[in-house]
Amino acid sequence: MAKNLRIIPLGGLGEIGKNMTLLEYGRNQIIIDCGVMFPESDMYGIDLVLPQFDYVVENQETLRGIVLTHGHQDHIGGLPYLLERVNAPIYGTALTVGMVERQLEEAHVRERATLEVIDDKHTLHLGPFRISPFAVAHSIPAAVGLVIDTPVGAIVHTGDYKLDETPTGGRTTDFNRLKELTPNGVLAMLGDSTNADRPGRTPTEQLVADTLDQLFAEAEGRRIIIATFSSVLARLQEIMRLADKYGRQVALTGRSLQQNVELARDLGYLKVPKGLLVDIKANVPNDKLVILSTGSQGEPRSALNRMAKGEHKQVQVHDGDTIIISGGTIPGNEEDVGRMLNNLFARGANVIYGPLATVHVSGHGSREDMRIMLEKVQPRFLIPVHGEMRHLHLHARLAQENGLAAENVFILHNGAVWTTDGEKAWLDESIPAEDVYVDGYLVGEIGELVMRDRERLAQDGFVVVYVPINKQRKLAGEPRILSRGFLRMDAAGSIMDAATVELKRELKRNGRNHEDTVRETLQNFFYHKTQSRPVILPNIVRV
Amino acid sequence: MAKNLRIIPLGGLGEIGKNMTLLEYGRNQIIIDCGVMFPESDMYGIDLVLPQFDYVVENQETLRGIVLTHGHQDHIGGLPYLLERVNAPIYGTALTVGMVERQLEEAHVRERATLEVIDDKHTLHLGPFRISPFAVAHSIPAAVGLVIDTPVGAIVHTGDYKLDETPTGGRTTDFNRLKELTPNGVLAMLGDSTNADRPGRTPTEQLVADTLDQLFAEAEGRRIIIATFSSVLARLQEIMRLADKYGRQVALTGRSLQQNVELARDLGYLKVPKGLLVDIKANVPNDKLVILSTGSQGEPRSALNRMAKGEHKQVQVHDGDTIIISGGTIPGNEEDVGRMLNNLFARGANVIYGPLATVHVSGHGSREDMRIMLEKVQPRFLIPVHGEMRHLHLHARLAQENGLAAENVFILHNGAVWTTDGEKAWLDESIPAEDVYVDGYLVGEIGELVMRDRERLAQDGFVVVYVPINKQRKLAGEPRILSRGFLRMDAAGSIMDAATVELKRELKRNGRNHEDTVRETLQNFFYHKTQSRPVILPNIVRV
Repeated sequence: MAKNLRIIPLGGLGEIGKNMTLLEYGRNQIIIDCGVMFPESDMYGIDLVLPQFDYVVENQETLRGIVLTHGHQDHIGGLPYLLERVNAPIYGTALTVGMVERQLEEAHVRERATLEVIDDKHTLHLGPFRISPFAVAHSIPAAVGLVIDTPVGAIVHTGDYKLDETPTGGRTTDFNRLKELTPNGVLAMLGDSTNADRPGRTPTEQLVADTLDQLFAEAEGRRIIIATFSSVLARLQEIMRLADKYGRQVALTGRSLQQNVELARDLGYLKVPKGLLVDIKANVPNDKLVILSTGSQGEPRSALNRMAKGEHKQVQVHDGDTIIISGGTIPGNEEDVGRMLNNLFARGANVIYGPLATVHVSGHGSREDMRIMLEKVQPRFLIPVHGEMRHLHLHARLAQENGLAAENVFILHNGAVWTTDGEKAWLDESIPAEDVYVDGYLVGEIGELVMRDRERLAQDGFVVVYVPINKQRKLAGEPRILSRGFLRMDAAGSIMDAATVELKRELKRNGRNHEDTVRETLQNFFYHKTQSRPVILPNIVRV
Repeated sequence: MAKNLRIIPLGGLGEIGKNMTLLEYGRNQIIIDCGVMFPESDMYGIDLVLPQFDYVVENQETLRGIVLTHGHQDHIGGLPYLLERVNAPIYGTALTVGMVERQLEEAHVRERATLEVIDDKHTLHLGPFRISPFAVAHSIPAAVGLVIDTPVGAIVHTGDYKLDETPTGGRTTDFNRLKELTPNGVLAMLGDSTNADRPGRTPTEQLVADTLDQLFAEAEGRRIIIATFSSVLARLQEIMRLADKYGRQVALTGRSLQQNVELARDLGYLKVPKGLLVDIKANVPNDKLVILSTGSQGEPRSALNRMAKGEHKQVQVHDGDTIIISGGTIPGNEEDVGRMLNNLFARGANVIYGPLATVHVSGHGSREDMRIMLEKVQPRFLIPVHGEMRHLHLHARLAQENGLAAENVFILHNGAVWTTDGEKAWLDESIPAEDVYVDGYLVGEIGELVMRDRERLAQDGFVVVYVPINKQRKLAGEPRILSRGFLRMDAAGSIMDAATVELKRELKRNGRNHEDTVRETLQNFFYHKTQSRPVILPNIVRV
């Protein structure tokens, strides 16, 4: 019996983050990327969300390797957790592997992994899979897409990409190699859908460089503070070039930034002129200094946010500082960023952000770029990946407008098993792929029920009721009601007294199911008085 | 002694919403607008935020009236709460007063208010204040700015405004009347700052009309569903015109939309062709129907969101529906809107939103519009209002770039008392103006401490510990630990058992302060095991 190729997205569909795809042919598996997702605002108390690894763990003897497209957290952040459970070689370009290595060391699982550096010139053989990376332009250097030759045909995984003919880092998306690698056409493309709702083309990184140059010129005599993503190394390189041009030195603040600069410099991805970098504590005049900082997303503990709140040990923001927020706001972070901007303005800084100037461009192609990719690759089947449901649908529709038959476009969900014999394609039975929540040391120990409790607690707090009963299950003392997150102490007193009276009456009248009586009586009483529904926890104790 | 004019913003500074300004001259007060603010995402469980009314209540015998600029909730929504505590005549244009009246009826305080209709042709006298409204273009009809003549000079309050030379509703901002009303110049302007970070000019509403016309043409043969704000009556009018043009009938869903259409029709703000409106239950073919709906912000219980989740009683979204989201996403609502869009796409609808087409324009002027306003009014003093701190600062800077001296621009906070004798201006001692939270029936009974508890509960849940002690304050039985929102039931068992053992050991070893022992022991134990910090509530009981 001929074998089929199975492509199983384990994350990244219907969501932004935790990208992970499994390719399976007979008893051979490879994984492309293994990312984390940052929680949405209604995922109370959750630090990270992981893909569901169970299927991979169960079939780990068939796992030939993990291939990475680039070093962003939504593509590599899940590896420390996956390596706790399986062992497999990891392949990526030098920068990607460098970033993974650091992350594994921090998680104390470095020894569980073999790390192998690949590049966009050579081909890697993993069981029946021949994997040839090709360069793509993205907001981190050394990003690749993958051509994966399988026994049933060639698969293209675009990775995250944009089309930038004049990138400041010099890396464009390599359509020539892509074409050379696919002489017999492409069976299926897994295509980045992130910006499927942005019309036109994503502007070149060069625009940001031009804006920054102008802002440096205008900031003459004043200190410049720039916050950006720590992995946009091409932009960091540009900022260093501008600092050099305008006779300034550069100080770094923020751990991830310092680490990435060091790593990129060691690996040759970043050229730092001699004497350019100074310690943040060094005594450099304002007009000769650029401070490069983390915190473009307003993250509470980031360097820039600490400056905004006056809590940064080395940097006090003052009147006349030019502060440039060189990073787009990731959806969900709007309020954090807004608050930080407000605080920086309140300290007298001249803050340049968002629509006021082109201080950031996206790392993902927009609709027109996606159309070009589709035309270059000409896949028989399209599987839109990396995006919320609307992005997948808009990508699918774009492909159809461009001539792909509707039945050849597959909008999948995580865990879907897309199967092909090289001619036809169909869906086999899905595998489990629900979110796995990380909360502190707890991985997967927080479920939906706990989340729903947290949501109710966030809304209305809770009430605990201690009810002493005797052997005959009669009330044997005064009930005691305690609450938190419900009412202000001074306002709570009288309402709790009234609740106690009501509760005693009900407990006397009512039968033996004290738990339900307590819960229902107080639920109704508090709702009637306040329109709130605190969590009610009865604690019936035999005394 | 000459009297001074005092201008006191009670809300709307450093925030978007709850706009309210107090003007005081001797023993005469007037209030301009009285709005609510919708909670930010970290205001757990809060329904609404009100301005602090205490100062107004204390001085109510001097209150001459409340003047409204327009009928949006952030300008009128606080009135039902204010009228619970003070009595004063309310003045607004016919539509504004109509909307207030409905709101007061729903809150059962209609009889506490005198409502008076004013217009943009006449002048209202309230004590020493002469108040002359002038027309402004905004996203609701019958909006006005105010020229307020006071004994020390003329004050201009712009209200919310944009400059739109071709508004579909026909109402432009009336600079001629503004000029006529201020023959002796303007002492101070309170200017809308909402869009101070948007460069250029805000596009005309006509653009939206053009886009909608095109979308109607393209939707031939299919059902059209449009979600928009229920108060953008000019756009509703345009949609009705287009429906008529393309031979469709219009069905309304969503309570606020139905109410506003009825009110606007009664008052002559909306012309509805005969037979155009049909009941949502009527049997109209898809290609002859437009459904107008609330829910452009993805509000959980709105009509469109119910359709997205398949919970709308009358409307099932199906393949091929054209759904137009004709409303900008208000900051903080991005995730709700995103989820709703995803669900609509998943049902097969063709959803047109945000950047894909110009289906919405702002109701507030952008930087260039604000510059024009400044040039027309030429105030001696500027007080930027309506905006977060960054908007106020950007407005201030814009004015300075335009020639206003820095010392004549006042960035205030809520409760600041800006005082002028008609020549100079200075700040007197502030009055209290902190947020007042509304949570169900509770107004002001939720304080900062309750909010902090809710935040911790949302993060890590809580643990309640029942500890029975005897007369000698010795442990007199087994402690019992209960938790919610902390760990999954199945995961919690063993950790709670271990916690109980640890707790008993500590209680035996430790002295008499059981409360602190319980709290500290469990805090440390759980943090060590989980990196979480649930709220811990000891319940020590003498048995």
